[in-house]
Amino acid sequence: MKVHTLSILVDNKPSVLSRVIGLTTRRGYNIESLAVSPTHNPEYSRITMVVEDLDDVVKQICKQLGKLINVVSISDLTSSKPIERELMLMKINTKNSKTLAQKLKSSFITILSKDDDSITIQACATTKQLDNLEEALQDFDIAQIVRTGKIALP
Amino acid sequence: MKVHTLSILVDNKPSVLSRVIGLTTRRGYNIESLAVSPTHNPEYSRITMVVEDLDDVVKQICKQLGKLINVVSISDLTSSKPIERELMLMKINTKNSKTLAQKLKSSFITILSKDDDSITIQACATTKQLDNLEEALQDFDIAQIVRTGKIALP
Repeated sequence: MKVHTLSILVDNKPSVLSRVIGLTTRRGYNIESLAVSPTHNPEYSRITMVVEDLDDVVKQICKQLGKLINVVSISDLTSSKPIERELMLMKINTKNSKTLAQKLKSSFITILSKDDDSITIQACATTKQLDNLEEALQDFDIAQIVRTGKIALP
Repeated sequence: MKVHTLSILVDNKPSVLSRVIGLTTRRGYNIESLAVSPTHNPEYSRITMVVEDLDDVVKQICKQLGKLINVVSISDLTSSKPIERELMLMKINTKNSKTLAQKLKSSFITILSKDDDSITIQACATTKQLDNLEEALQDFDIAQIVRTGKIALP
């Protein structure tokens, strides 16, 4: 099993996203994360989908997705060593948390707001780095985390 | 028409995402952007969905989505003035682009890589700021843009 990052360019129409997700999940493939946004050309959207499976299985998914109408192109970026980043927002309750400041000293972390009771941060890094940050903060009182899922450039 | 940011907590199962997207798009609502990622508790995923429609229509979408099995909670963050951020990666071809460096001087832009022919940047800001950045750079030779879609904390 390996984590694969698929970059799928599709026509910007309501039904396309549904068909891409439908085909993927109907066959029981679990989507780890998903990021969808219009491209520079508003006629198209780009779907970045992270799936964890055997190489052959992912090759099969790509083949099937490529056959869908309105799917313009699909590429598995995994082997091309792409630039990958993900964004996370996190709110942490800070009562009795004197040691927190030290844990947040990192070039990829920005403090967005802070009051007596809580702190809200933005972290923009690789998925692995964000996983490690979550782990490093697991003893703190995390009120909420939201993540974008990974995006990548070949 | 107003842009609404919906935050949907769902069970982390393959079929749930498909049903949420299916229900939304089947009725012709266009999803502007979508970000899906596991939460701190691996049993759940959080879907951040941006839709642009009339308030009443969005209220209707939320009501219908809330009835789906495996949808734990759904909230329209729009009126709560949430903290919102989005991530963009952009590769720009830089031959004959002496004025580019100046355009990239912003606190929310980080240069990830640079060679004689191209520059790759990461920008992490509000959706509006990223739209403005894209517009400011439209005269340059943009090779590729990929965006995560917006995420938000109430």
